[in-house]
Amino acid sequence: MENNVHQYVESLCLAAKAAAPAAASASGNQKNEALRRIAGLLRERSTMIVAENMRDMDNAAANGIPGPMLDRLRLDEKRIAGIAESLFDLCRLEDPTGAGERIVRPNGLIIEKIRVPLGTIGIIYEARPNVTVDAAALCIKSGNACVLRGGKEAIYTNRALIACIKDALAGVGMNPDAAALIEDTSRESSVALMGMRGLIDVLIPRGSAGLIRAVVENASVPVIETGAGNCHLYVDESADLEMAVSVAVNAKTSRPSVCNAIETLLVHQKAATEFLPRFAEAVRPWSVELRGCERTRKLLPGIAAATEEDYRTEYDDYILAVKVVDDFDEAIAHINRYNTGHSEAIITRSLENARRFQREIDAAAVYVNASTRFTDGGEFGLGAEIGISTQKLHARGPMGLRELTTVKYLIDGDGQCR
Amino acid sequence: MENNVHQYVESLCLAAKAAAPAAASASGNQKNEALRRIAGLLRERSTMIVAENMRDMDNAAANGIPGPMLDRLRLDEKRIAGIAESLFDLCRLEDPTGAGERIVRPNGLIIEKIRVPLGTIGIIYEARPNVTVDAAALCIKSGNACVLRGGKEAIYTNRALIACIKDALAGVGMNPDAAALIEDTSRESSVALMGMRGLIDVLIPRGSAGLIRAVVENASVPVIETGAGNCHLYVDESADLEMAVSVAVNAKTSRPSVCNAIETLLVHQKAATEFLPRFAEAVRPWSVELRGCERTRKLLPGIAAATEEDYRTEYDDYILAVKVVDDFDEAIAHINRYNTGHSEAIITRSLENARRFQREIDAAAVYVNASTRFTDGGEFGLGAEIGISTQKLHARGPMGLRELTTVKYLIDGDGQCR
Repeated sequence: MENNVHQYVESLCLAAKAAAPAAASASGNQKNEALRRIAGLLRERSTMIVAENMRDMDNAAANGIPGPMLDRLRLDEKRIAGIAESLFDLCRLEDPTGAGERIVRPNGLIIEKIRVPLGTIGIIYEARPNVTVDAAALCIKSGNACVLRGGKEAIYTNRALIACIKDALAGVGMNPDAAALIEDTSRESSVALMGMRGLIDVLIPRGSAGLIRAVVENASVPVIETGAGNCHLYVDESADLEMAVSVAVNAKTSRPSVCNAIETLLVHQKAATEFLPRFAEAVRPWSVELRGCERTRKLLPGIAAATEEDYRTEYDDYILAVKVVDDFDEAIAHINRYNTGHSEAIITRSLENARRFQREIDAAAVYVNASTRFTDGGEFGLGAEIGISTQKLHARGPMGLRELTTVKYLIDGDGQCR
Repeated sequence: MENNVHQYVESLCLAAKAAAPAAASASGNQKNEALRRIAGLLRERSTMIVAENMRDMDNAAANGIPGPMLDRLRLDEKRIAGIAESLFDLCRLEDPTGAGERIVRPNGLIIEKIRVPLGTIGIIYEARPNVTVDAAALCIKSGNACVLRGGKEAIYTNRALIACIKDALAGVGMNPDAAALIEDTSRESSVALMGMRGLIDVLIPRGSAGLIRAVVENASVPVIETGAGNCHLYVDESADLEMAVSVAVNAKTSRPSVCNAIETLLVHQKAATEFLPRFAEAVRPWSVELRGCERTRKLLPGIAAATEEDYRTEYDDYILAVKVVDDFDEAIAHINRYNTGHSEAIITRSLENARRFQREIDAAAVYVNASTRFTDGGEFGLGAEIGISTQKLHARGPMGLRELTTVKYLIDGDGQCR
C-alpha cells in the first residue's frame, strides 16, 4: 500500500517535471490567458464547487472539526468570486521571468544573467481550499509546474478546483500535467512528496507550526519555511501610550489566527504602571486571556501567570503573554531569544531606540510605531504572496512571484578558451 | 570524547553568533581596514607561516598524501603574497549590505527592504589553506561571522592564518570571535558543525564531491551545495569543427581538477567522423584517457568502452567520456539526465539550436561557442567568490558577496493599525 502511494506521488511528480520546460517557455500572454480561464471556469462551475464543498463541510462537521477550521474550509459563491477576482489581479502583475542583466567581458564573452522559473514546486497545506487555486495560479504565472498536497478535509472541493485549473491549462494549449493535485491524502502521500529529490525543486509548507516542523524535519527536497510567527510588540519607556494601546489591541485581536498577530507584549517597567491597566481595559471587548509575569500580575490582579512555555508559544488565539522588562536591552534579548524571525514591533518616541531595535532584532520585518499585522505581500505592495518566509536563505518575508524564480547565466562566445 | 568535541564546536559557534551583530554593524571602512591588516600580517609573518606550512607538508608527505593534494596544501612566499593581494582587491568591491529599496504605502507606512548579513556562516573545506583567508575575508567584508572547519592536513598552517585574522580584527576594534577556526579536525567536529541549528545560518562545503554529499546528507543547518560539476560539451551537427576542437581541448585539459572542466563530450553523428579523429589528435599531448560509446570506438579504435557509470562520474582528471548522439534532442536529454546543474556548452552555427540549448538545459551556466572553464566569480566580473552554487535556491552559479546576505524589511509608521 505504502509503496503504491509512493509510486502514485512519483508519477505525478514525474509528469509535472516533464511538463515544466513547456510551462517555463509559455509566453506571458498565454499564462495570463490561463489564469483568466481558471477565473471563468470557477464562476461557471461555482454551484458545483459549492456542492462539493458542502460534502467536505458535512464530513468535517460529522468528524467534529473545530469551528475556525470549518470556517477556513468553507467556500461559498462570494468566496469563489473573490478567488476569481484575485486571478485577474495576478494577471496585472509583471512576469517575474526573463528579465536580466547583460555584461560584455573584455574577452568578448557576452554574459546574461536571467530570471527563470525554479522548475517544479511542491506545496503542502491543510484545510483551506483557496490555497489550491492561489498556489497553482502563482506557479503558472511564474512559469513553474506544481504538485499540490491539500488536506483530507478539503478533498472534494480540491478535486473540483484542480479540474478547473487543468481544463484552463488545456484550453490555452498548455499541458495540464503542469498542475497536479495529490488526491491520496494519507500521511504516506505527504511523506512521499517530501522525498522527491530530483523531481521537486522546492517544497513550501503552508499551515500550522506542526505541519511546517514536520516538513522541515522530514523533507529531503529543499524546503522554504513559512509562517511560524511568534511575534512581539515592545512598548518602550518613551512610547506614546495611546498609540501603544491601539497598536497592541490591533496586533492581537484583528485576526488572532494569523502568523503576523502578536503573542507576547513586552512593556518597559517605567511605562507599565500607566500602560497595562489602559491596555487591559481597551482589549476587554475581545475577552483576550492575558498571562503575565509577576510584575504584570501586580498591575493586573487576577490574571494567570505566564510560564517559559507561554513565551515559546504561538497561540494563534485570543491569548496574550505579557511581560514587564527592566529596560530596552532586556526587551531585545527576550525577542531575539524567542522570536521565530517573522515580525516584531516597538512603540517608541526615541529615534535611537527605534534604529537600534531595527538593527538588532533578527526578523524578516521589524516595525517602528505600527502593527505587525502589515506583514503581507499585498500590504507590502508585492501583489500576491505564496507565503511568508521565516528563513534567511532565498526568500525572507512575504514571498511573491520573484521568489518562485532562480537565475541562470547564458554565455555567448565565438570560441573563447581559458 | 565525542561530547567534548560537540561542546567545543558549540562554544565557538555561540561566541561567533554573539559577535555577529557587531560584525554586521561595522562600517565599510572598518571592515576594509580589517582586510588590509590581515594582508599586512600575512606579509609580516610569512616566514613563520611558510614554516608552519612545511610542518603540514612534511606530515602529509609522511602520510603518503598524493601529489595534487600536496600542491593544494603548499603555501610559499609567492602564494602568500597572492592571497594578500586578493585582500586588497576585495577592499575595492562594493559593500553588499545596507543598500535597499524604499516604498511609501498609501497608508503612510514607509517600507525599506535592505540587505543585511546572513549572520554566522560555517565553511567546511579540505586541504587548501588559502580557503581559510579567502572565506574569512568574504565573511568579514559582508558583515558575517564565520566558523571555519579546514582539513586536518592543513592544521598548522590554518592556526597561523587564523591568528593573523583574529589579530587583525582585534587591531581594528572588532571582536576576534567573529572568525573562528575549529582546531579539532576529527570527523566528530565536522558532524557537530553540521548540527548547529540556530547558531549557524548557512553551511557552505567547499571541496570534493564526497565532502559535499556528506554535508548535504548530514547537515540539519541550511546548506548551499557548491562545486559538483559533471559538465558536458556538445558538438552540434553545424559546429565549426576547428572551434569545437580547441574548446573541447581547453575545457578538458586546462585544469582537469576543477569543477568547471568537462567530463563528457557529446558529438552529433554527422559531425563525428570528421571531428573525433581531429580532436583525438589535438588532445594527444595531454595523454587524456578517452572512454567511448560504440560508435566512438569505431572512429577511435583502441579506446576503452564508456559505461553508464562513466557518464555519471566527475573524473576531475585526465579522463573523458565520449558519446556520439543521433541528434540535438538526444544531446539535450543526455545532459539533463546526467548533469549536476553546473556548466554546459554547445558548439554550433545554428542560432535555433543555440537558443534551444540555453533554454532547455537546466544548469547554472549554459554556454554557446565557449569553454565551460569560464564559470568563475572573477571571470564573470563578480569579484571574489566563495563557491559555485549548483542549487537553485538562494544562489545559483558563482557566489559573491551579495550571496552572503539576506534581506530585512524595516517598517516605519505613526501608529498604523490594520
